[in-house]
Amino acid sequence: MTKNDIGLIGLAVMGQNLVLNMARNGFSVSVYNRTGSKTQKFIAGPAAGKAITATYSPEELVASLKRPRKIMIMVKAGWPVDAVIKQLTPFLEPGDLIIDGGNSFFMDTERRSKELEEAGLLFIGTGVSGGEEGALWGPSLMPGGQKEAYELVQPIFEAIAAKVDGEPCVTYIGPRGAGHYVKMVHNGIEYGDIQLIAESYDVLHRGYRMDNPALHDVFSQWNKGLLQSYLIEIAADIFSKKDEETGQYVLDIILDAAGQKGTGKWSSQNALDLGIPATTITEAVFARALSAHKEERIAASQVLEGPGLVTAGDKDTLVPALEDALYASKVISYAQGFSLLRAASKEYGYDLNYGEIARIWRGGCIIRAAFLNDITAAFRAQPDLPNLLMAPFFRDAVVSRQKNWRIVLKVALDLGIPVPAMSASIAYFDGYRSERLPANMIQALRDYFGAHTYERVDKPRGQFFHTEWVASETDITASSYNA
Amino acid sequence: MTKNDIGLIGLAVMGQNLVLNMARNGFSVSVYNRTGSKTQKFIAGPAAGKAITATYSPEELVASLKRPRKIMIMVKAGWPVDAVIKQLTPFLEPGDLIIDGGNSFFMDTERRSKELEEAGLLFIGTGVSGGEEGALWGPSLMPGGQKEAYELVQPIFEAIAAKVDGEPCVTYIGPRGAGHYVKMVHNGIEYGDIQLIAESYDVLHRGYRMDNPALHDVFSQWNKGLLQSYLIEIAADIFSKKDEETGQYVLDIILDAAGQKGTGKWSSQNALDLGIPATTITEAVFARALSAHKEERIAASQVLEGPGLVTAGDKDTLVPALEDALYASKVISYAQGFSLLRAASKEYGYDLNYGEIARIWRGGCIIRAAFLNDITAAFRAQPDLPNLLMAPFFRDAVVSRQKNWRIVLKVALDLGIPVPAMSASIAYFDGYRSERLPANMIQALRDYFGAHTYERVDKPRGQFFHTEWVASETDITASSYNA
Repeated sequence: MTKNDIGLIGLAVMGQNLVLNMARNGFSVSVYNRTGSKTQKFIAGPAAGKAITATYSPEELVASLKRPRKIMIMVKAGWPVDAVIKQLTPFLEPGDLIIDGGNSFFMDTERRSKELEEAGLLFIGTGVSGGEEGALWGPSLMPGGQKEAYELVQPIFEAIAAKVDGEPCVTYIGPRGAGHYVKMVHNGIEYGDIQLIAESYDVLHRGYRMDNPALHDVFSQWNKGLLQSYLIEIAADIFSKKDEETGQYVLDIILDAAGQKGTGKWSSQNALDLGIPATTITEAVFARALSAHKEERIAASQVLEGPGLVTAGDKDTLVPALEDALYASKVISYAQGFSLLRAASKEYGYDLNYGEIARIWRGGCIIRAAFLNDITAAFRAQPDLPNLLMAPFFRDAVVSRQKNWRIVLKVALDLGIPVPAMSASIAYFDGYRSERLPANMIQALRDYFGAHTYERVDKPRGQFFHTEWVASETDITASSYNA
Repeated sequence: MTKNDIGLIGLAVMGQNLVLNMARNGFSVSVYNRTGSKTQKFIAGPAAGKAITATYSPEELVASLKRPRKIMIMVKAGWPVDAVIKQLTPFLEPGDLIIDGGNSFFMDTERRSKELEEAGLLFIGTGVSGGEEGALWGPSLMPGGQKEAYELVQPIFEAIAAKVDGEPCVTYIGPRGAGHYVKMVHNGIEYGDIQLIAESYDVLHRGYRMDNPALHDVFSQWNKGLLQSYLIEIAADIFSKKDEETGQYVLDIILDAAGQKGTGKWSSQNALDLGIPATTITEAVFARALSAHKEERIAASQVLEGPGLVTAGDKDTLVPALEDALYASKVISYAQGFSLLRAASKEYGYDLNYGEIARIWRGGCIIRAAFLNDITAAFRAQPDLPNLLMAPFFRDAVVSRQKNWRIVLKVALDLGIPVPAMSASIAYFDGYRSERLPANMIQALRDYFGAHTYERVDKPRGQFFHTEWVASETDITASSYNA
């Protein structure tokens, strides 16, 4: 009996599409799904006539594969991944490879990597981005694990990945949880991009009363310029789409209560742990949370008056200013995201290659955009770039747009339209370029009430000082107790 | 041999001061510290002649106490608390009470509460705020644990707590980790207050070139009005304090790199978990993180040009506008903090009394302020108030100040001075009072690229819809896979 190249467990839409992608690229695939009827339906349907073999138990799946076996798991993140691994391992042999292609939390991937390595098995945790279409026609893949594990699947991954300028959107990311870490940050950046688009829409729609056809034109125009990207492109599409049942624009009948699945939140929580101000992403996550409190907002809208401004000035100057504001804010969001990657690379020993990460995000994934070429170029020119804003291209791009950026933010303030992610972006810009921030006041207050001590501008770093701000009632010396 | 009323372990400054406070209020205290020399020094020094007994082992400490024993632990949060509990428990009997007065993470307190309850012991995790001075002369105490455990220490806690209008700044908070949870949010709010003060200082100092004596006058004036609070008061003091060595203002020689100990970060991370937009606190935490990247900022300041505005308009109109902006932003920060408490009360079953929490924060603690009277009143008038902004007093206070608030934010944008916490506050205000947010676009994009589905404005909540935005290449149905 001929053995297959790779196995895949979990035939939800992402799993099915990856299998079809592999088969289309000449690889033979065995599939297994907990519910056998789904497997049968897949085999009789989309998989019919292709080099795809149904199996109905983990044992049968393993037995159907060439050695060393490569088995990709596409199930819901969390305990289901552990459950599948537990079902598989009794049938595997040393040197076999398990690949988790779900949106696992990177710390879970770290743990599984260790556990499986102790059992003599190879393990890859890989980000897979691009949604359903990406999985089928070419996703962006972010695999982390042993280098030799990656080499086992490299031909398959390079074949199925999206291609940009002939190069596949996949590269070896780093050890253990590195792949899922990078995917998490990708998703955080995606949250930021989406929120910035939503804020731009809000300024034009609520603030300037632009209708959907006009918005379609604006976004289509933007998609021909600096902002050219998948998300701007589909936003333009969205403005044109009508509901078949009611004849209304779909956008207008969608409830304004956003969902989320966790990866954006994880990025923010990890940024807080690593002390990296990923403020744009975090405001995007919180904006979704605020939107979900729909009933509270309805009640509040009836009693909390806004600034009361009805007219908002000239639309024709605002649209290009907003294009600049959106672009500059987006650069900040990516600058924060890459700073986070940099901190994680150090903290977790991932040894990340930022230029390669930007390169593989150029195609296949949700955040694919023209300007990832510029990010790739910036990191190729200076691999140890401390911050994207320090690359001449992005420095000039943002500095030259700040006038329009500030105009848009002031307009939003006048209109009473919330632009939390854009506001956070410019605050980061103004903070990052500040040689001196008012954190001396923070330290003074902390030293005053809690004797937390401070460093001095006229003494070497690492020396800590305390001031007796008021005459002390006791002679007890300062501690580091946190009030 | 006479037995003492209470024992205390950990003679750093907070522990020593709490002991002195208890003794001053007529309670006899046994103390123990890992390093015996510290105990000896304390007994011979500040404790001399008082009802304070030195002990030199956990066993001796336990033996010296009245039953049921009450032992308060004042050691560094984390494993040291577990280590001390482990040393103590062999000598304790059912019904004895351990009190953790450090800044423990509330989930650790949840765990310890369960473990000790299984061992038949009572456990309180209590927030203690007010720094060194508070511990000595009257802190704000936030005890969580069994109700009967609280009753055992209620006379002591009420005696040592700060008093406002004759009422002690302590109340039973709730079960298990409730006390440490509330202390965590208190500290998060403290981060917000401090950051808003720092931003106000920055606008006046960098933006309007005001010197320290002038800033002292402004803050002293503010402390007589709506902003009257401990932190504004000590900020005013700080502007007057000179360094004995150099003769310079201490504030001017303090390095602008802020430290943090974790409770602010925990508040933000928990807010992300509970889906509560605590954006002001979170921007405050991130602002400290950004300040700590001092070397990067110095480099950036040399290449990232600002808006280039030198003059900033009229100082005399700006100062009162800034007072309004600071006040309104502060209200938002507290509105978010109390929303977080509300969500936690539900999520963790804490059954919190918001009016009582505001009441005990009026004295003793770092965030004590006149306006906590108004918060107390608001929750007394409406215990189930969904948001502080919905209380008539705060609604009017913020709505009427929004003109000045927006002016200040626009001035900061023109000046290129970062005001991340104030910006986040107004974005929250404008978002919260929006009946319709642009989250319909977020949902449309998510449904387009990932088939995440959406709810409709014209259908009941809980029904989810998907649009075929483009002609599909396969007939695979949508999954909930997160792209």
